[in-house]
Amino acid sequence: MSDMLKTGATIGILGGGQLGRMLSVAASRLGLRTHVYEPSANPPAADVAHQLTTASYEDEAALRAFAETVDVITYEFENIPTSALDMLESLRPIRPGREALRVSQDRLTEKTYLAALGLKTAPFANVESAEDLEQALSTIGAPSILKTRRFGYDGKGQSRLKSAEDAAQALADMAGAPAVLEGFVNFSHEVSVIGTRSADGQVACFDPGENVHRDGILHTTTVPARLNASQRMDAVLLTANILNALDYVGTMGVELFVTPEGLIVNEIAPRVHNSGHWTQNGCAVDQFEQHIRAVAGWPLGDGKRHSDVVMENLIGDDMDRVGDIALEPNAALHLYGKAEVKAGRKMGHVNRVQGAVKG
Amino acid sequence: MSDMLKTGATIGILGGGQLGRMLSVAASRLGLRTHVYEPSANPPAADVAHQLTTASYEDEAALRAFAETVDVITYEFENIPTSALDMLESLRPIRPGREALRVSQDRLTEKTYLAALGLKTAPFANVESAEDLEQALSTIGAPSILKTRRFGYDGKGQSRLKSAEDAAQALADMAGAPAVLEGFVNFSHEVSVIGTRSADGQVACFDPGENVHRDGILHTTTVPARLNASQRMDAVLLTANILNALDYVGTMGVELFVTPEGLIVNEIAPRVHNSGHWTQNGCAVDQFEQHIRAVAGWPLGDGKRHSDVVMENLIGDDMDRVGDIALEPNAALHLYGKAEVKAGRKMGHVNRVQGAVKG
Repeated sequence: MSDMLKTGATIGILGGGQLGRMLSVAASRLGLRTHVYEPSANPPAADVAHQLTTASYEDEAALRAFAETVDVITYEFENIPTSALDMLESLRPIRPGREALRVSQDRLTEKTYLAALGLKTAPFANVESAEDLEQALSTIGAPSILKTRRFGYDGKGQSRLKSAEDAAQALADMAGAPAVLEGFVNFSHEVSVIGTRSADGQVACFDPGENVHRDGILHTTTVPARLNASQRMDAVLLTANILNALDYVGTMGVELFVTPEGLIVNEIAPRVHNSGHWTQNGCAVDQFEQHIRAVAGWPLGDGKRHSDVVMENLIGDDMDRVGDIALEPNAALHLYGKAEVKAGRKMGHVNRVQGAVKG
Repeated sequence: MSDMLKTGATIGILGGGQLGRMLSVAASRLGLRTHVYEPSANPPAADVAHQLTTASYEDEAALRAFAETVDVITYEFENIPTSALDMLESLRPIRPGREALRVSQDRLTEKTYLAALGLKTAPFANVESAEDLEQALSTIGAPSILKTRRFGYDGKGQSRLKSAEDAAQALADMAGAPAVLEGFVNFSHEVSVIGTRSADGQVACFDPGENVHRDGILHTTTVPARLNASQRMDAVLLTANILNALDYVGTMGVELFVTPEGLIVNEIAPRVHNSGHWTQNGCAVDQFEQHIRAVAGWPLGDGKRHSDVVMENLIGDDMDRVGDIALEPNAALHLYGKAEVKAGRKMGHVNRVQGAVKG
């Protein structure tokens, strides 16, 4: 590949959280620099980025100056204002491209898109009014979940309806934001596939991981996931299907519900994903490096799993346990450098290496 | 350990080469920042350090300002001027401590120290004059190697004597620098042990690696090394012996010659070591993180080898092969971000993961 970014080239990263931090580390392994753009002061990624811009996404001069120092632009979160993306895209390539952002920024668009690809999703309906919700409940029923179409993450912007009587409260919880009602899926467990597609269309997926959530936040990912051979194949093929349909360049997380009737796509994230952090200690090349390789025009690396891993998120005062975890055999710590501990805040994670994969 | 450095604390690193770069990455995994001090502009470590000071080791104001921003000071190379160390040590702890530097900065001191510990070294003699060299050759004989006592690395500052007739040329090669004559050791292969000692005296050694050199520069390290059980035990015990004798805090590299009569210590390096780079892809916790843990007052991590690895250095125009290596299965690249390729310059390395360790 003659257009591989070379040593000393710079990748611009929108967002300076822990994902940007670990992307910067991965870039360094390939001899590449990063320039992080983040509105908040003192972000986690600043510790390991070559350059940092602290400015808002409305600051056109800062966006322009940022773009002019980098060779390509990527992002660690999907809710970047459209005006900023328009400006940046006029100056440098953005990878993954705008279509992936357009689709994933809005739950209704995303579910419609996935359904059009022939993939199974939970039943869903657009809700912009009490009438919409009444209509949606008549077809989807309860229990169900009303979710804001945009800006939801880690369980935020969601309201559960046990019965149709909860409709008014659920709609009030949305505070006027457009929403989507999702039907309840009777699933046994959740898995996710982390897949990457290179600039020339090569696709590689890591082994699926099995996710357990607590209080709406990912708690653990265990690899290998409980899946039979055909489910495993289906999970990988549908991920490749999505990556190809979007002409995607980079790493994506695909969350799947496992049901007796097959896999149901819960949601997609057009970025490296918390449920892929296990790859740091389970593979020679992890999800962050795969993303950087794709964005930098490199061929993908070998993401074969060499070890079984259980990843546990360290949230809020889980940090009190770091001294003990540091003593555990087979434990690889990954802290994010966040000085302030808050309830529900992701402070780090630990990958517990469970043993070598045989054969 | 109540005096573990906490999230947001800063480790000062003297030297901004690839070792400082990979130490910075390891520090980030523990939520720690680094401040790199390096006289040359634009060093490899700057890409991933939180802060960089570009100043000489004679610049007292810069040294003081550097020390005042950090919690503890470590280094990536052993030849730091004594005056700088004196200044820094008056302000912050330096780990590993001065004794390790004193011993390892001078080949004669080092060999004398190791011999006093009861360890086997090559026969050696101090050479400061033609008379010294004649005397040394009469006891040690030829073939032998004359080496400068200080500032030698990667085969620099060395002259081989095939016979006593090479004495004058060898002495001229030293350009007046104090030297040591080392007798030839008839060894089958070289191995090295990377060991770490924590601030409270815990010692952990990685599995020994087997080293192959080309043109005086490390070419490959293969793990596991060819050693029988008693040699393996001896290698680890003698490394622990050195670490304890020096009251050492940090990671050390110990190079050993394997001979029919036992292991002979070639040299020690009071820092992370090129022959330990395989640990990045063979262990949950690598040599860089063990060093940072020790320096930061943390307990050591679990450096058990989960995979067999062959590390190959990428030197000079080996960089032309990066595109091919990026395509190899099981290959983990680690490039140093050096823009200028020079013959003999270490540009990066690749860890080829050979398969899981059984059991």
